[in-house]
Amino acid sequence: MCLSAVNGSSSQSSGISSRIKAEDMFCNSSPCCNDAGFLQKNNSLDEKSRMVGAFKESAKNQMCDNSERFTRAETDFSNLFARDLLPAKNGEEPTIQFLLEVVEILTNYVRKTFDRSTKVLDFHHPHQLLEGMEGFNLELSDQPESLEQILVDCRDTLKYGVRTGHPRFFNQLSSGLDIIGLAGEWLTSTANTNMFTYEIAPVFVLMEQLTLKKMREIIGWPNGDGDGLFSPGGAISNMYSVMVARYKYFPEVKTKGMSAAPRLVLFTSEHSHYSIKKAGAVLGFGKENVILLKTDERYLFFFFDECDFKLYGAFDPINDIADICEKYNLWLHVDGAWGGGLLMSRKHRHKLSGIERANSVTWNPHKMMGVPLQCSAILVREKGILQGCNSMCAGYLFQPDKQYDVNYDTGDKAIQCGRHVDIFKFWLMWKAKGTTGFEQHIDRCLEISEYLYNKIKNREGYEMVFEGQPQHSNVCFWYIPPSLRGMPDGDERREKLHRVAPKIKAMMMECGTTMVGYQPQGDKVNFFRMVVSNHAVTKSDIDFLIDEIERLGHDV
Amino acid sequence: MCLSAVNGSSSQSSGISSRIKAEDMFCNSSPCCNDAGFLQKNNSLDEKSRMVGAFKESAKNQMCDNSERFTRAETDFSNLFARDLLPAKNGEEPTIQFLLEVVEILTNYVRKTFDRSTKVLDFHHPHQLLEGMEGFNLELSDQPESLEQILVDCRDTLKYGVRTGHPRFFNQLSSGLDIIGLAGEWLTSTANTNMFTYEIAPVFVLMEQLTLKKMREIIGWPNGDGDGLFSPGGAISNMYSVMVARYKYFPEVKTKGMSAAPRLVLFTSEHSHYSIKKAGAVLGFGKENVILLKTDERYLFFFFDECDFKLYGAFDPINDIADICEKYNLWLHVDGAWGGGLLMSRKHRHKLSGIERANSVTWNPHKMMGVPLQCSAILVREKGILQGCNSMCAGYLFQPDKQYDVNYDTGDKAIQCGRHVDIFKFWLMWKAKGTTGFEQHIDRCLEISEYLYNKIKNREGYEMVFEGQPQHSNVCFWYIPPSLRGMPDGDERREKLHRVAPKIKAMMMECGTTMVGYQPQGDKVNFFRMVVSNHAVTKSDIDFLIDEIERLGHDV
Repeated sequence: MCLSAVNGSSSQSSGISSRIKAEDMFCNSSPCCNDAGFLQKNNSLDEKSRMVGAFKESAKNQMCDNSERFTRAETDFSNLFARDLLPAKNGEEPTIQFLLEVVEILTNYVRKTFDRSTKVLDFHHPHQLLEGMEGFNLELSDQPESLEQILVDCRDTLKYGVRTGHPRFFNQLSSGLDIIGLAGEWLTSTANTNMFTYEIAPVFVLMEQLTLKKMREIIGWPNGDGDGLFSPGGAISNMYSVMVARYKYFPEVKTKGMSAAPRLVLFTSEHSHYSIKKAGAVLGFGKENVILLKTDERYLFFFFDECDFKLYGAFDPINDIADICEKYNLWLHVDGAWGGGLLMSRKHRHKLSGIERANSVTWNPHKMMGVPLQCSAILVREKGILQGCNSMCAGYLFQPDKQYDVNYDTGDKAIQCGRHVDIFKFWLMWKAKGTTGFEQHIDRCLEISEYLYNKIKNREGYEMVFEGQPQHSNVCFWYIPPSLRGMPDGDERREKLHRVAPKIKAMMMECGTTMVGYQPQGDKVNFFRMVVSNHAVTKSDIDFLIDEIERLGHDV
Repeated sequence: MCLSAVNGSSSQSSGISSRIKAEDMFCNSSPCCNDAGFLQKNNSLDEKSRMVGAFKESAKNQMCDNSERFTRAETDFSNLFARDLLPAKNGEEPTIQFLLEVVEILTNYVRKTFDRSTKVLDFHHPHQLLEGMEGFNLELSDQPESLEQILVDCRDTLKYGVRTGHPRFFNQLSSGLDIIGLAGEWLTSTANTNMFTYEIAPVFVLMEQLTLKKMREIIGWPNGDGDGLFSPGGAISNMYSVMVARYKYFPEVKTKGMSAAPRLVLFTSEHSHYSIKKAGAVLGFGKENVILLKTDERYLFFFFDECDFKLYGAFDPINDIADICEKYNLWLHVDGAWGGGLLMSRKHRHKLSGIERANSVTWNPHKMMGVPLQCSAILVREKGILQGCNSMCAGYLFQPDKQYDVNYDTGDKAIQCGRHVDIFKFWLMWKAKGTTGFEQHIDRCLEISEYLYNKIKNREGYEMVFEGQPQHSNVCFWYIPPSLRGMPDGDERREKLHRVAPKIKAMMMECGTTMVGYQPQGDKVNFFRMVVSNHAVTKSDIDFLIDEIERLGHDV
C-alpha cells in the first residue's frame, strides 16, 4: 500500500503542542488526590516511570523524528475487523490506520464536492439501490464484515448520495460544506457527549451560553438577557415557542393539561412554515386553531392568544405586528429560522426591524449562516421561563448537591433528555470567521440572488412568482418553455405549466448536473424556488443553472 | 513542520479505489443528457480532455507514486484563515492540510481516551473556564482568528472536556467511543444532509428503513412490519409514542385539539423515565394526568387510556401488562431506550419477553449498544400511523409529482422538518460487528456488572439499593464510610448517608480518576448508580472504581 505518514505529534513550527502533557498525566494538586495513588493501581508496571517515558517519547515526537507510531503503514484491512480496533489489545495501530483511511475517503469527497466537473448526484431509484448497486449491499447481516468492506461501504455511501455542498446544489435552505464547521462536527462526534449537564459537557455548555447571549444581543434584547437552547431543528424550536407562550399565559396547562385553559389560538401567516401547524397539532391546540392570515409578507411569525381574535390582511414590518400584539396582549414569536441570518448583516438587518420586540425567536444557523446540520436556536426574552415550562427535576440527572453551580445544567430546560452537541461547530465557525465573516457570507449570498433576479426578471421564458425584488435570497420563478409561450392564460396553460418544473427537475436529477427545489403554493402552480446559502456559489453557477433549465426545458 | 504524507488515492493492496471514476465524471446514459453538454458549460478548457487527464492522474495515483497533492506539508497556519479554505481559489491544499491537522488532534484524543494512565476529566468550575484557562478564550469576536488559533481552540476544547469513552467513565447510560461509529459520524457530517426526503438522502433513507425493519423483526413483530423513525433522543421517541396513541384513539385531536377528547390519562411506572411526565406536559395532557404506578419492576412502560382507569400494584413481566392493556383496550408502549439493547442477546432477551405485544417501542442504540450520540428509534407496530398522526403535506418539500416513489420521503412522518442523519453510524456498526457482535457487547457489559454486584454485595461498607441480582447492567448501591458503620438506622444516619455519594463524586471529579452517577429516588437517599455500556470496561476497572470509592470515602 502506497500510503504515507502522519505524525502523531503536533507541528513544531506552529508552536502548538498536542502532546500528552505531564500535568495531564499526574494527579493534580487537589487535596483529595495528593498521593497520586490512582495512577498506581491495577498496573504491574510502575506507571509513573512509564509515563515519564511516554512523555519523553512525546517530546521526542515534537522534535520531528517522524515517530513510527503514526506512520501510515501498508495495512491489509481484509483481515481486520471491528473487534481488532480499540479497545482491543494492540488496537491502537489498526485504529489509527483505519481512521486515516476513512479520512482519505472523506477528504477526497470534500475535494470533489467543490469541483464543478463532478456531478451533484448520481441518481438511482430506491429499488435500484435496494437491489444492490455494483455490490453495494444495504442489508444487515449476523456476521461482521471486514474493515476493507466497511471502507468500501463508506465510499459507496458517498458515491450514491447527494453532494449538498456542491456549488450547483440549490435544493434546500441548508447547503454548502463549511470546512471549519466540518472540523467542528468531527470534533463533536469524537467528544461524543451530551448537553444535559455541565458535568459531562463543561466546555460545550459554556459555549452554548455565550453564543446564545451573543445572538440575543444581536436581536437587540437589552444586555443580551433572556434564555435559550439549541434544539434539533427549526420545527422543534418553533414548538418550544408555542409551549413557552402557553406556559406564560396558562401555567396550569403544564400540570392539568389543555382542559385547564380556554380555547387557545395561534395566528400565523399563510406563508409560514408548516411546523407552526404541526406544533398546534402536537401540543394539543389542534391545527384548526392555527389561523392562517393572508399577508403580503414573507416573514414567518405567529401570535398567540387565548381569545377568538381573528385578523386578516396584509402585514408589513414586524413593528406593525408587534403593535397589534402589544395592544391585544399576544405573545409574538418571530420564526427567523431562515431569515435570522440577515441579522448578521448591517446592510440587510433592517428587514427584521422590530424583532427586538418579539417574545421569542427561532434562528437556525444551519440555514443562511452555512453551519452544518443540525444547528437551530430558540431564543426567549424572558429569563427562566424555559426552565419553568419544562422542568421535571429528575433526581438522577440534576442533583442540587453537586460541587459546581448547577444553574449551568441545561437539561431541565429542554423537552429532550439527552441533547446533541450542536454548538461547537457554530462556535468554532464564529471564532474562525468573526462576526464580520458571517456578514460577508450573508451579503454575498444576497448579492448572488440579486444577480439571478436581475438576470431573469425580463428574460424571455421567465415569470416571477412575487412582484418586486426578493428581500431574502429566495427567488421564485416559473420557466415557460417555448411550447407554452404565447398560450393564453387559463386552465390548460396552468395545468401544463404545473408539470414543467417537475419534469425539468427530474431531468436535472437524472443528469446530476444541478438541483433546485420546486413547489406549488396556494393557487400558484409549481414554480422553482431558488435559494442561495452556500458561499461556494458564484455568478457563473447561476448562469449554469439558467442554461441548464433552458437546455432541459426547451422541448418540454 | 515535521508532518508526513497522506496519499489521496486508495491502497493498491486492498484493491479498493476511491479515485474519480470516469463514469462518475461523464454524463450517464439517461436520455436527457446524452449530449454530455452540462460538462462543457462555463469552462474555457475542454472539460472532457481535462477530465480524461484527471482520470489518468488518478489512475497514476493508484500506481502508488505518492502524488504530491496529498503530501502532508509544513504549513504555517498562523497566516491562514477560514477564508483561505475551500471554496477559495487554491483553497484545496490548505483545506486538506487543515483537516489533517484536526484529525491528528482527534486521533491523539482517541488514543488517550483508551489510555488508563490519563484522566477521565480535568475538572474546572464554570467561572474558571469563563475567566479563560491558560488563554482558552470562549468569547466570540468580530474579527476572525487564524487557523493556528482555531487548532488551539480545538485542543483546548478537548482538554477541558470529559472523556466519555474512557474505560473509567461510568457516569451515564451512554458511554464508550466506538471507532466504527466514530468513523460513521465523521462521514455523516461530511455528507451534511437531511433525512426528510429520499431526494437528498437516498442512501441514508434506505438504510434507516432497512435498519428499522430489522429492529422490528428483533422485537418480534410479524415480518418486521410496522413503522418507525430515528428521533433526537429517547424523550422525543417516548413523546412520539404518546402522540401516536392519542391519534389512534382520538384522531380528531390533531385537528381540533385536546378539547375534542375526554380526559386522557397516561399510566406509567413510578420508576419510569421523567420524559413520560414531560410528554404529558408538552402534549397537553398535563403532568397530573400521568399516573405513576407502584411497581417492583424496573422496566419502563406506560399505558394510555381515555378513561379514568386507575391501577396500583406491582407489575412483573411485560406479558402481564399486555394482558391488562388488551383487557382495557389500552395502548402499550415499552420504553426500551436503555433496555432495548438486551433484545440483541439470546441470553438476556427473555427479560423483555412480551415486548412483541407492545404497540410501540422506544429503543436507543446510543445507550446499551454503544452507538455514538444521538441514535434513538421509535418503533410502531401499526403501519402508516406515524404519517397519519404527523402529516401536514408541505408542498415545498413533499411534492407528489417527483420522479421517484415518494413513499420513501420520511419528512411528513416526523414532528421535525429537518432531521439529522442518525442512522449511518449505527448501520455501519451493524455491518462491522454483525448482529453477533452486538450480542457479545451486551453479554459482556452484563457480565461486568454481575462481577461488580458479586464483588460488593457482601463486602463491608456496601449496601445494595434493590434486592436481588440486577436484571440489566445497572448496579445501585450505597457506600457506607467507616464513620457511619454501626450507626443505628434513623434520620441522622440517613442525612449523613445522603451526603456521602455527592462528596465522593466531587472528589472523583476533582481528581479526574473516574466518574459514576448518584441520585436519590423516592425515600431512598443518594446512592451510586453504576452502569456499564462501554465495551472498553474490564473487571480491573471495576476493581479500580471500588478502590477509588474506598480511598476517597474512607474519611467522609
